[in-house]
Amino acid sequence: MPKEGITPRAKDYAQWYLDIVDKAELADYSPVRGCMVIRPHGYALWENIQAGLDRRIKATGHQNAYFPLFIPQSFLQKEAQHVEGFAPEVAVVTRAGGEELTEPLVVRPTSEAIIGHMFAKWVHSWRDLPVLVNQWANVVRWEMRTRPFLRTTEFLWQEGHTCHATEEEAEEETLKILNEVYADFVEKEMSLPVYKGLKTDKEKFAGALRTYSIEAMMQDGRALQAGTSHNLGQNFARAFEIVYQNRENQPDFCWTSSWGVSTRLEGALIMAHSDDEGLVCPPRLAPIQVVVVPIYKGEEQRPGVMEAIRRVVGGWEGRFRVKVDDRDQLTPGFKFNEWEVKGVPVRVEIGPRDVENGTAAVARRDIPGREGKQLVQQAALAGHIAALLEDIQQGLYDRALRFRDAHTRDVSSYEELKEAVETGFARAWWAGTAEDEERIQAETKATIRVIPLEQPGGSGRCVLTGRESTRQVLFARAY
Amino acid sequence: MPKEGITPRAKDYAQWYLDIVDKAELADYSPVRGCMVIRPHGYALWENIQAGLDRRIKATGHQNAYFPLFIPQSFLQKEAQHVEGFAPEVAVVTRAGGEELTEPLVVRPTSEAIIGHMFAKWVHSWRDLPVLVNQWANVVRWEMRTRPFLRTTEFLWQEGHTCHATEEEAEEETLKILNEVYADFVEKEMSLPVYKGLKTDKEKFAGALRTYSIEAMMQDGRALQAGTSHNLGQNFARAFEIVYQNRENQPDFCWTSSWGVSTRLEGALIMAHSDDEGLVCPPRLAPIQVVVVPIYKGEEQRPGVMEAIRRVVGGWEGRFRVKVDDRDQLTPGFKFNEWEVKGVPVRVEIGPRDVENGTAAVARRDIPGREGKQLVQQAALAGHIAALLEDIQQGLYDRALRFRDAHTRDVSSYEELKEAVETGFARAWWAGTAEDEERIQAETKATIRVIPLEQPGGSGRCVLTGRESTRQVLFARAY
Repeated sequence: MPKEGITPRAKDYAQWYLDIVDKAELADYSPVRGCMVIRPHGYALWENIQAGLDRRIKATGHQNAYFPLFIPQSFLQKEAQHVEGFAPEVAVVTRAGGEELTEPLVVRPTSEAIIGHMFAKWVHSWRDLPVLVNQWANVVRWEMRTRPFLRTTEFLWQEGHTCHATEEEAEEETLKILNEVYADFVEKEMSLPVYKGLKTDKEKFAGALRTYSIEAMMQDGRALQAGTSHNLGQNFARAFEIVYQNRENQPDFCWTSSWGVSTRLEGALIMAHSDDEGLVCPPRLAPIQVVVVPIYKGEEQRPGVMEAIRRVVGGWEGRFRVKVDDRDQLTPGFKFNEWEVKGVPVRVEIGPRDVENGTAAVARRDIPGREGKQLVQQAALAGHIAALLEDIQQGLYDRALRFRDAHTRDVSSYEELKEAVETGFARAWWAGTAEDEERIQAETKATIRVIPLEQPGGSGRCVLTGRESTRQVLFARAY
Repeated sequence: MPKEGITPRAKDYAQWYLDIVDKAELADYSPVRGCMVIRPHGYALWENIQAGLDRRIKATGHQNAYFPLFIPQSFLQKEAQHVEGFAPEVAVVTRAGGEELTEPLVVRPTSEAIIGHMFAKWVHSWRDLPVLVNQWANVVRWEMRTRPFLRTTEFLWQEGHTCHATEEEAEEETLKILNEVYADFVEKEMSLPVYKGLKTDKEKFAGALRTYSIEAMMQDGRALQAGTSHNLGQNFARAFEIVYQNRENQPDFCWTSSWGVSTRLEGALIMAHSDDEGLVCPPRLAPIQVVVVPIYKGEEQRPGVMEAIRRVVGGWEGRFRVKVDDRDQLTPGFKFNEWEVKGVPVRVEIGPRDVENGTAAVARRDIPGREGKQLVQQAALAGHIAALLEDIQQGLYDRALRFRDAHTRDVSSYEELKEAVETGFARAWWAGTAEDEERIQAETKATIRVIPLEQPGGSGRCVLTGRESTRQVLFARAY
């Protein structure tokens, strides 16, 4: 049943997204232009996202650290492409402690500059390499058009920064992050399939040698860049003089990488899975996985029902994230509605008849209405719920994958490409230039999202120029 | 044995602290005035501090959220005392996205103003109360004299903000945080006894009705304010119009509280426990609790020793945070030294004779040299280490408590007070004014740290004015 205050997707997808963010109490607008407030339910989801990423980042050998929020303006200017990319969108502190600063301080839009400076201080010999650090932090980019989670002036993210002896090691690191950290997390925990690939020069990070990204498809067929990993070559090492003595005792520039994902991921999660009834959340990341709603009429039924619930949920600690909704003045219907909007994957109802029969009604959020509801023996409930959570997790992935495959078209002419990007991704052979990409973007609003790592082999005619090419690319309109 | 590069405490306590921070690789200086870089070992310690606090904050019913870094300048001005306290030390963004801002944005020095604004938006009725949120964030205060962890321009902290229907509830919250969250954490996990009490009006938070704090004693007898909890009365509710309909359907101002601890705690931990050989870290917070160092001569002994170590540590995952230091080119002595400086509580050594005899040598960091070393059967090792970690945790607390008691003196004259604050705390009856406090501070550099919650009862003569008083206070020089 469509919910009050939620615009149906079919009617206005953009407004539907904003309604979900609002009604599920994920975020709110702040009085500061383009900055959002992440509300407790939205932040609990972010904490689970952080935990899943942090575990993978540490498992691949990285250590967390923390670097200053402020970057001296001159530092940003040391790498020519970097400053060109970021200078237009920085916020600048010019006054502090009641005085004008002699050198303005940029609020970090990303931390290559300040971390590059520290790497130069720490790295002396090949024995100091690799340096593998990660930072959880806030960054600021002065964006013109903002949207909660998807694009905000201030956002939260992690940014990894590494320093290596050779190009091969930097490249290996860059791809390891893309595959073992980002794609693995998004597919397994967010239930969202991604295309992995290389960005074209036009789309790469300001200052990078190569940028890789993972791209997910939203329910309107648009792409969302869910994470990027950059091989920075020796560009930043030259700019910040990160020099080490190699095994031959010769000074050499390091090879560095950087990579990040942000609160944007939460926007992707919301947009990819939710429906007209509210948030739909993959169980592994759901702040509350199971809500238990007592059903009773009058005060005399209450104690028996609550006692049964206490007994049932008694052994669940550490197994599920559970909330027993024992609020007194609210009807079960009101509670069902609230937890559906907030995306709790499983709801358990226990009433007087269940107390008698030793049963419970179990409803799954991903299949609304009666079809998703089942009567289960209390004795079998924990096992049933564990299996159900896994089933929902996998089901969301499968559904997203089917949707993506159905909305990814192989195109062989520009006309077909134009049509395909109206509703999804277009896969095409490509031999065009950056100018060609500009033209397509101007005419169709679509960009090359990635040159996929997985290529079919062989060759074909470029969708625009007709020239023979050995590589395919994915075009899409993007968030 | 004193370590290279660490100035002995007795010679120069301030320099000793800086040397520990540097040699244990906890933090480094950055090119941004007063901002530090928290290095991986220091950040891992901070993560453990965060985890212990976050668990207690959630267990007392609070939820995490996130509010903007920037605060419109006009917001800070809404509460008169608040702006007076913080305006001189704020950093201000005046330019962003290439343009001058029409209203400058203050980088948050604390978030009462922005959160007060959001509370006003969220709270309508008594049913919405209490609101209990916490934020992990960075804040900026433009300090003149900075010192790693203890006072830095940018620092990391948590700030709790709550909103209540009555003064009693706000007061109860303020004290609950002081007792159940802050004092409990610092005493049980940081092994540091604290005095809990009320700040005088002169020392309270800018805009608060009442400020409570916990104060710890460092090894030079100075006080370090380790956490503060403020009952803000209705001051911020009036300034930001946080109004609710009470049970009688009348509009009323809320009562709010705020409370915070910061990376300063890490400075307190370092200063309170460490010695001339480096960091000493309470086991519950140590990034590495047990380091295992293989002892062998030549390549032929190595495999047997490493195999024994693998077998021994095999079952320790999830039980201890362990590092096996299998670096090849370094001598055991070099490794011992490094992990002593970095404050690992327990070191295990296994050599060829241990392999034969099924033994291991176990050294404890808190008792340096031979006295702290024991030979233990490998079969009993895990149990031995578990008990040892507990023993070290408690031993550090006991030692700090003995030191504090030995350096807290009851004083009954101003002369005695002056003498006592040279080496520790002075406990005195007090009936003076804010001007009297100023005078004492000017003459002795000591301030009233707290009016302890635990009072002896009865009365005595004020140490300065001679007037009869029913309350005692604690004077000390402070960090």
